[in-house]
Parts: sequence; structure tokens; C-alpha cells
Amino acid sequence: MKKIAKCLQRTLPEVLSVLVLLTIHIIFATMFAMLLFPIYEIKKTNATLTYSNDTNSSIIISGPDEGMKYFNSLMDSFVNLLILLTTANHPDVTLPAYGKNRFASIFFIIYLIIGLYFLMNMLLAIIYNQFRGYFLSSMQTSLVRRRLAVRAAFEVLSSKFLSNVSISSLRRGIGVNIVKRIVEQSDLPNHVHRTLTEKVNKNKESKIYSATQFQELFLSLDDDVIHKQLPAVRWFAQTKWKRVQRIFIHKYFTYFGMLMVFVNLIIITVQLGAKFDSSFRENHSTLRIFNFTFVMYYLFEQVIKVWANGWRRYVAVRGNIFDAVITAALVIGETVSACLFGIPYFPSSQEITEVSLSTTMWNILRLVNILIMVRLFRAIPHIRSMAVITTVLVDLLKNLKAFSGILVAIFYTFAIFGMQLFHGVIKYQPEYANKTFPCGTYEQLDYWANNFDDFFSSLIVLWDLMVVNNWNVFLKVYRTKLSS
Amino acid sequence: MKKIAKCLQRTLPEVLSVLVLLTIHIIFATMFAMLLFPIYEIKKTNATLTYSNDTNSSIIISGPDEGMKYFNSLMDSFVNLLILLTTANHPDVTLPAYGKNRFASIFFIIYLIIGLYFLMNMLLAIIYNQFRGYFLSSMQTSLVRRRLAVRAAFEVLSSKFLSNVSISSLRRGIGVNIVKRIVEQSDLPNHVHRTLTEKVNKNKESKIYSATQFQELFLSLDDDVIHKQLPAVRWFAQTKWKRVQRIFIHKYFTYFGMLMVFVNLIIITVQLGAKFDSSFRENHSTLRIFNFTFVMYYLFEQVIKVWANGWRRYVAVRGNIFDAVITAALVIGETVSACLFGIPYFPSSQEITEVSLSTTMWNILRLVNILIMVRLFRAIPHIRSMAVITTVLVDLLKNLKAFSGILVAIFYTFAIFGMQLFHGVIKYQPEYANKTFPCGTYEQLDYWANNFDDFFSSLIVLWDLMVVNNWNVFLKVYRTKLSS
Repeated sequence: MKKIAKCLQRTLPEVLSVLVLLTIHIIFATMFAMLLFPIYEIKKTNATLTYSNDTNSSIIISGPDEGMKYFNSLMDSFVNLLILLTTANHPDVTLPAYGKNRFASIFFIIYLIIGLYFLMNMLLAIIYNQFRGYFLSSMQTSLVRRRLAVRAAFEVLSSKFLSNVSISSLRRGIGVNIVKRIVEQSDLPNHVHRTLTEKVNKNKESKIYSATQFQELFLSLDDDVIHKQLPAVRWFAQTKWKRVQRIFIHKYFTYFGMLMVFVNLIIITVQLGAKFDSSFRENHSTLRIFNFTFVMYYLFEQVIKVWANGWRRYVAVRGNIFDAVITAALVIGETVSACLFGIPYFPSSQEITEVSLSTTMWNILRLVNILIMVRLFRAIPHIRSMAVITTVLVDLLKNLKAFSGILVAIFYTFAIFGMQLFHGVIKYQPEYANKTFPCGTYEQLDYWANNFDDFFSSLIVLWDLMVVNNWNVFLKVYRTKLSS
Repeated sequence: MKKIAKCLQRTLPEVLSVLVLLTIHIIFATMFAMLLFPIYEIKKTNATLTYSNDTNSSIIISGPDEGMKYFNSLMDSFVNLLILLTTANHPDVTLPAYGKNRFASIFFIIYLIIGLYFLMNMLLAIIYNQFRGYFLSSMQTSLVRRRLAVRAAFEVLSSKFLSNVSISSLRRGIGVNIVKRIVEQSDLPNHVHRTLTEKVNKNKESKIYSATQFQELFLSLDDDVIHKQLPAVRWFAQTKWKRVQRIFIHKYFTYFGMLMVFVNLIIITVQLGAKFDSSFRENHSTLRIFNFTFVMYYLFEQVIKVWANGWRRYVAVRGNIFDAVITAALVIGETVSACLFGIPYFPSSQEITEVSLSTTMWNILRLVNILIMVRLFRAIPHIRSMAVITTVLVDLLKNLKAFSGILVAIFYTFAIFGMQLFHGVIKYQPEYANKTFPCGTYEQLDYWANNFDDFFSSLIVLWDLMVVNNWNVFLKVYRTKLSS
């Protein structure tokens, strides 16, 4: 018992870092979800928006919509996504959005793949590994101790000692010239070839390579990654410019930028939690003002970075390109909204009524907020424990190449079979809207969008079955429909 | 992709044996469940039975009861237990029975512990182990091949060979007499002491123990199990009796007995599937006749075994005692029912009406059927692949001692905390019976029996939370009840 408690204690740091990552995952998804699935219902009554012109689909989505039902407030969204991570509300929570737009399911699938299949299984693997070691070692030690005691008894009883036989290590090797010729004639990737010749040329002292030296030399064959040299900073001539340049090249400037994004994100969260609707519909809302300010800062940050580093050094870092693209998108978004509705600092009072009717600003603002959140992803490689886990995840993806191939094949086959077997079995009748069905049935849960009528929805049904929760609903409905 | 397919293929035998065990587990549980939770409703209307005198409890169990709702037919029971194994219908399926009798939950808990936590996790472990090996080896081989090639290149280039240095193994050891004295003076368990002295006395050839011999001698320290010698058969004097005796001592006679139990079980299954009610209520039903015949055979089998083996040899095998106890219980059950309702072969027509009113026979018959099923457990150690898995399970239980201690502590602590925090929060109101609640809520699902009002039900709620499925129902009800 004490041992197991100790074992649990030893897993704590790793477990905690995964848990932190899980929490961040849920929080990010919460904000994404709130921006992706806004509360249309309230907006509709306020601004007389008709979001579903297709009469057929509007019958199907008779219940309240996604934002209304599951992402009503920050707390609600968080709890619902936490429950989704345990799959306890799986197909239900996705359905209002999926029924309206098929691609909404992509959000939930990515959320579950990262959260459930990667992070949760990682938690399992960490604990499994630790305890496998524990059980093995606790069983082994008792056996080993016994063997050792028996052996020691033998040694004491025989009281003889084996004379030490030390084999003098032999000095032998290959001449430097031979190695040089081999490296020159070898047919290797360019970057490996270069490092090898560099290494060989460096070796000036000894004229002979021993076995270990020889093996160390060729260790660089294992390097997959090309270590590109970062272009050197081209310093300005004047001293005072040089001093300014040094400030902006320093890594603390990058950290400061991340801090700014983080502050921006907190403001968005608070605004989303406090007054979800007014921030999106009013022209000079606090949210718009803050976002405009921050986006201007981001633009300034990127421009100054290009100036300080020079173009070549700036482009060499992949993270900078990521930043640049997102900043450009943000600037375009804010410019468009500024052109259409004016700069948020100076509200023109006569414009407010018009603006509140527009869906363009609504959508632009949502996009801007999402982009700001995406910008924070750059911070992940800078946090140590998270960087470790993300590299594990990336490695996992590489190793899963073959595996995902099999998965695709299985999904494809079963989707085709499912369509052959169950195509058109479930038909929605308009009068169902007024009927009440017993709880927990396909009809009551409004699962109408989940069927085998076309390839895409077949895939989604198979995904739902793989997540397991509520698979019995599908089982029952197809059993009754096919037997009747 | 080819490699992974091969890897999957290699796991198949192990996976299949676990799947077979899972299927057997579900089938056994199906029949157990049908006998434990019979269809009271139909019986009630036919035989005017009142099974719930307590008015308070009869309000709570307003819906149909367990047998009616989930174990209506063999197929229904099987499907429901299969779904239970994926936890997709977890607390719901247990509730009608649990609401009526608290100890009904024990059946479901044992079912889930064996099926979900042992067998399903075993499946996971098998696949995990296989693929861990696959990923490791595929990564290692490419690295090892490279290292080997580099080393080989070195060998070829240096073209020198290490002269073989063979250390002549030294002959040394301990005298037999010293070993004998050690064994005599040692303070060891009796059976180990005996085997050690036997081994030492056997060694006549060599006068000296070498290190390996010495270690082999003490290997018997690792034996946990006491290998008892089976008492020898005391053969009868007459040749013809001896021949008869040989037949019944042969292991094929035991196998034949198992075959009989299996046939009996199939008949019970068929009868349960075909005419569940009439077999239990009619005096001369096919089921009663068959069971009576088989029980007489079991009695004959055990008596003949005692006669052939002799008392001491019969008692020495633990399986025989198991058989004897169950056979005794079966004989008592059948005798009681024969005394009360007559031997099933000769139905007295005037008795039928009386008998159909009695619940005693109903219960005795259920007990008899369950006992016959339990009898088949003896066959498990005789099937190789199943024996391997069951020994793994038993070993697991031994290793989980410390672990289950922690689990008990956690359950105890959380149950106490839960009672402190949520005691009496949920109160059942009689008018709820007529109200309709929205689907998926605590009230609609009739979760009333799941609360923190006493220690036992707190434990069950915690178990429900651990199984995860539908935990959001508890979350929501306590959130709303506490905040209102």
C-alpha cells in the first residue's frame, strides 16, 4: 500500500502536466465553441434575423439550436465540453449544430481526437507504464534477493575467490586518410555529408580512429532534422539604433508579445462571460475597442520585428511566418470592420441602429476573436512540460501513419456496407414534429441527421459508434425499423 | 501497413480467447439475470401475487420492473448485458432491480468488474503489449542495423582480429555434508524442508556441490503451492469389480459428467427462451422433468465416485468437494419440491391449480437452475486457453490487494464526504409520480434510489460515477438542487 502510494506520487508530475494540457484544451475549445455556435435565438428576436430559409431543414431542427442549448454561458460550455470528454453526452451535444451544418461535426471530432484519444490515452499510458514497472520490480526484487542470498551463501561456504582476469584492451584502429576517403566517396544526403567532412577535418590530434571514435563519427547519420544556421543579425551602424535594435531582437520581446495575447484572451473571456450579445452587436463595445487596440499592437510588433531582424532572419524562423499570416488576417478583418462601421473609438451615434442589424460585423468579430486565440498556440513550444507532450503527440502522428491508413480503410468499408444495408431505412415524417416519443429513443433524441443515407453522414454515424456512448440508440432504431 | 496488419494477425489468438471468455461471461450472466429477475408482472396477473406490500416503495417503483423491462426474453437480456458491458446503459439498467432490493446491485457490480475492468482491460493490455513491441522493434531494428553496418565497416577496414581469450572455468564447490547440515538446521516451512532433505539425500554421485547445483537445490524455495501427493487408489480384490472401478476412476468419466451438465444447461436455455412462464409454474413441465432426471444422475455420479476412489482420495481433490456441496444442495432442493408437489413424472391432476399459486416451487426451481449453472464452473480449468486467462485473473487479484485497499479508502472517504455534503438534498415527492419531466433528467430516469442519504447508497452512487456513463445526470441534479 505504501509502495503504491509512492508510485502514485511519482507519476504526479507527468499526470499533472497532462491534466493542465487537458484543462487548456477544454478552455480553448469552450471559447471556440462559444464563438462558433453563438446564441442565434436571442439575436433572432432582437434583430429579426432569419437564419434558416430552407423549410425542410427548419422542420428538422425543431428544438433550440446549439448555442442556445449547450453553449449558453461560459460555465455551461465548459461543463458540457468536460462531459463530452468523458463521452457521456456524445452524439446529443453535437446534433443541433450538425443538423444545421454538416461541417460543425469537424469541430467536435477534432476536439475528441485530441482530448479523448490522445490526451486521455496518454494519461492512461503514463499510469500504466509506471505501474508496470512497479509490479515487475516488486516481483523481481524479492526473487533476485533470494537468488543473491543463495549465491552469497555459496561464496561464503566455498570461501574461494576467483582470480581476476583482466583482458588488456587492445589498441587498434583505422588511419585518418582512409576515413577521409570513405566520407568523400559516400553517397549521403547533403547536410549529413557536410557535417561528416567537418568532423573529419576537425580531428587533428590522433592519426588513428579507434572503434568507438569511428562509431561516434557516424552518429550524425541518425540526425533526421536539418539544423539550419540562423542568418546572423545585420547590426545597424549607428550606436543608438543598435541599442534599440538589441531590445527588439531579445527573446523577452517575444515573451512580452505572448503576454499581450494572453491578456487579450482574458479580456475576450471576461467579455464573453459578462455580456455576450451586446459586445458583438454594439459598434463601440468594450470588446471591439480592446480588440482594435491589441490588433494595432500586433501589427506594430511584427513590423518592428522585421525591421530589427532584417527580412532574411525574420523569414528563417517558422513561428514568425505563422505570426505574420495571422496578424495580416487580423489587420484585414479590423480594417474592413473599420471601413464599414467606423473606428470604434469615435462612435457616430446615428449609425448604431443600422449596425445592430448587420451580420457582417458579427461574423468579422467572431473571426477576429478566433484568430487571436489561434495566435496563442505559438506559446506552447516555449513551456517546457507542454513542449514535451506536444512533441510526443507529433511523433505519435508520424507513427500512426500506417495505422490511420487501416482506420480509413475500415471506415470506408463499413460506410459502404452501411449504406448498402441501411440506406433509406429511416425516413423523417413531418408529423413527427408534434408527436412525443419515449425518452432515449432515436426519435425523441432528434438523431435524424445521423443515418446511412449518404457517405458523409455514414462516416459520422460510424464515428459516433466508435465513441461508443449511446450506440444502443442506433442499434435499437435499426433493429425495429428493419424488422417492421 | 503490412507490418501492422501482421501485428494484428499475431494478436488474434489471444484476442479471440478473451473474446470467447467475454461471450461466455455474457451468456452466463444472461441466464443468471433471467433467473434472478423473473417477469413478475405476468406472474402477478396470472396468479394474483402481491410482491410489494410496502406502500412507500411501491410508489417509487412506478415503472415496469426489471424482468419486464430489460430481461424479457433471452435475446433482450443478451443485448442489454452486451450494452451494459460498454456501459452505454449503465445506471438505468440496474435501477428497477436496485430500487426494489439493494443487493441486486451486487450482481451488476460483479458483472461489470469481471467483464469491464478485467476482461476488457485484458483485451486492451494484449493489444497494447503487442504494438508496443511492434513500434519499439521497428524503430530499434533500423538503428541497430545502422550501428552494425558501421561496426562491420570498422572491422573490415582495420582487418585485425582479437585473439580469443577463453577463461577456463574453475571447478570448486561445497561438500555434501555441509549442505546437509545447513538444510537440517534451517528454519523453513515444513513442505519446503521436506523437499530439500529429499533432494539432498537423492544426490549420491558427486561429493561436491558446484555453484549452479547449489542454486538449483534451493529453487524449491520459490514454490508457493504445497504439492500434496494424491492418495493411491485402493483397488478392489475381485477382478470384475476392479474393471468397473477403473471405468469410473478414468478422467473421461469426469469429462462425461461435464458434458451432462452442459446438455442440461442447453435444455434450460431452450426452455427459458421458449416458454419462460409455464416451465416455472406447471408441476409436470418439461423443465422440471429434465432437471429432476439430471439431478438424479448427478447424485449417482458423486456416489459412484466416492465408491470408486475411496473417501480419502475423493476428499483430496478440491473440485470434488465443490461438486459434492452443489449436488447435495440440488438433491435437497429437488426432494423438497418432490415432497411438496409430487414427483414430476406422475402428475396428480387435482393438484395443478394449487401448485400454480405457490411461490415456493417458483423459487426452488430458480435456485436449482442457478446451482446447475454454477456446477459448470468446474469445467473452466480443463479448457487450456481459458485456464491461462483465469490464472492470470487470479494472479491479478493477488497483486491488486494493496490497490483495492486504496480503492476502499477512497470510496469510504468520498462516501462520507458525499453524505456530509448532499445528505437529504434530493427528496422524493409523491406527486412526482404523475408529473412528466424532460428526458434525460434525474427525475425522468427514476434515479431516486441513487442518493447520498445513507452509506450503502452513497457507495453505489460513487460506483455509478466511476463507471462514468450518465454521470452528468448526477452532476446536473445536485447542481440545480443545491443552487435552488
